[in-house]
Amino acid sequence: MKSTVIEHEKKLAAYESVSLVKNGMIVGLGSGSTAEHMIRKLGEEVGKGLSIKGVPSSEKTAQLAKDLGIDLIPLEKAGKLDINIDGADEFDPQFRLIKGGGGALLREKILAYNAKLNVIIADSGKKVDILGKFKLPLETIPFATPTILAQLIEMGLRPVLRKHDGKTYSTDENNCILDVDIFGVKDINSLNRTLIEMPGVVETGLFLKSTDLIIMGQGDETLFLRNDR
Amino acid sequence: MKSTVIEHEKKLAAYESVSLVKNGMIVGLGSGSTAEHMIRKLGEEVGKGLSIKGVPSSEKTAQLAKDLGIDLIPLEKAGKLDINIDGADEFDPQFRLIKGGGGALLREKILAYNAKLNVIIADSGKKVDILGKFKLPLETIPFATPTILAQLIEMGLRPVLRKHDGKTYSTDENNCILDVDIFGVKDINSLNRTLIEMPGVVETGLFLKSTDLIIMGQGDETLFLRNDR
Repeated sequence: MKSTVIEHEKKLAAYESVSLVKNGMIVGLGSGSTAEHMIRKLGEEVGKGLSIKGVPSSEKTAQLAKDLGIDLIPLEKAGKLDINIDGADEFDPQFRLIKGGGGALLREKILAYNAKLNVIIADSGKKVDILGKFKLPLETIPFATPTILAQLIEMGLRPVLRKHDGKTYSTDENNCILDVDIFGVKDINSLNRTLIEMPGVVETGLFLKSTDLIIMGQGDETLFLRNDR
Repeated sequence: MKSTVIEHEKKLAAYESVSLVKNGMIVGLGSGSTAEHMIRKLGEEVGKGLSIKGVPSSEKTAQLAKDLGIDLIPLEKAGKLDINIDGADEFDPQFRLIKGGGGALLREKILAYNAKLNVIIADSGKKVDILGKFKLPLETIPFATPTILAQLIEMGLRPVLRKHDGKTYSTDENNCILDVDIFGVKDINSLNRTLIEMPGVVETGLFLKSTDLIIMGQGDETLFLRNDR
């Protein structure tokens, strides 16, 4: 798919999500390229008089929102978010996501867990029948990362330590990211439990139960996929 | 129980554990007062010619071991530990432990997970029929700690944010500790899963499956409790 089409779809989804944000809401602000479109649009609306508070999921998002004049509050003051809008790297028909390509999965997951309504915005390329073409990111404590890496190799998950500019990538919480290959794993829920129970694995990029609504751009259309749980 | 008796029992258990350490072994070094007795004794043996490598579970333990002339190596170079010796705050008849009173539970758990043989050393006051008189420590990401606290209150677990010198206590990984009350909880294994799956909970102080042997001082005796799994 052409990158201009993808950008168009991302923007469609992002803009549509902003129409769900109402005066007085506390809004979780995701990270990544699609979330950035949403934040820019939200900044425009704030410029026109929309009054909201944002809770950012990364330092990068916090900076962008500040530059756009969006009021931010820390999660501890926010309590429950009214709405949380974020992107995803992949989603499947059961509304399960892989996230964390941008490295902000931990805070993103914390926001999702604390939101009344979770909205995912995506281009149509993010929709898959089976999760795992995208590598699953795991956030790991540096102290434990080498032994976790060894264990994941034994499990056949082909882990790769994420690098940035030749150095080990470091998250906002100063942890490492291991990207693993879960394509073909039958029981994703059980795998997720196994991974999370490994000491030193802080969080996985699998978001299995949080998503209420996916807004997907497709060509010139915007589709609303509702999770009727 | 008198504190001199407790100290005597701790020493008995600690000294006995050192007799399991043989030339050439890679040894996980726990944290806390009982582990300190073990490390001091190990330092004596090293002074007499015992050749081992230690992997410390905390900055404090690393400093003590260095001062005593014990060679240290990082976990990544160690791979599997031959033996891991550590204390516990409580243990029950199923060899399940509460640990983390000293705040080093994360690295302690990582070492336990990577050891061929896990030995717990304790005075007789640590033995309980039901876990939970001691508060269960949870290591949590600062960003998520306030909302986790709120959630734990809702769950009836009476969380307390650990403080030190009037400030929020910070672990070696710069995380927070929440101490929760699990006394009377029927299904500890299920509770542990629920806690670990909360985003922002890095690790719990419940060590449910790792322990192979408990060495317990009792009066002037030393008891060996083997976990015949």
